[in-house]
Amino acid sequence: MTEENVVYIGNKPPMSYVLAVTTQFNGGAGEVILKARGKAISRAVDVAEIVRNRFIPETQIERILTGTEELPRKEGGTTNTSTIEIVLKK
Amino acid sequence: MTEENVVYIGNKPPMSYVLAVTTQFNGGAGEVILKARGKAISRAVDVAEIVRNRFIPETQIERILTGTEELPRKEGGTTNTSTIEIVLKK
Repeated sequence: MTEENVVYIGNKPPMSYVLAVTTQFNGGAGEVILKARGKAISRAVDVAEIVRNRFIPETQIERILTGTEELPRKEGGTTNTSTIEIVLKK
Repeated sequence: MTEENVVYIGNKPPMSYVLAVTTQFNGGAGEVILKARGKAISRAVDVAEIVRNRFIPETQIERILTGTEELPRKEGGTTNTSTIEIVLKK
């Protein structure tokens, strides 16, 4: 598995990430990993569900991992942010 | 497993749900299920991570399931919303 199979979920509309995922699968990837942090976590789940329900029905959610990252704050100190990794398999 | 072990995640601050989860575990529950929809999904992951990292370190995320629900819209028709279920085990 190479880093190419990772789709980072940010603030764009879900469909741009859905397109990225389907492009990867159609290009021969057997696995695509969605990664998101903070509020984008909900969007990552949306993307996985839309791919599965509307575009590539044979897609399965292989596993979902969550974690916590310590990010520096502008004011100094750090803040904790949750992360998610959704592994999609075709 | 009874319905009592379910904590529904809404728009309150994460700590109120963290408290609900720790109360269940301290009351003897072996498993607590977090359920959330839409934008609250990110908060559900926050709650799971905070419980694990700060309150009950022996908590494990047993499994995470995602789904899609069709909700009626005020204007008529339906809209799809993603859902998540995080099963915590002690």
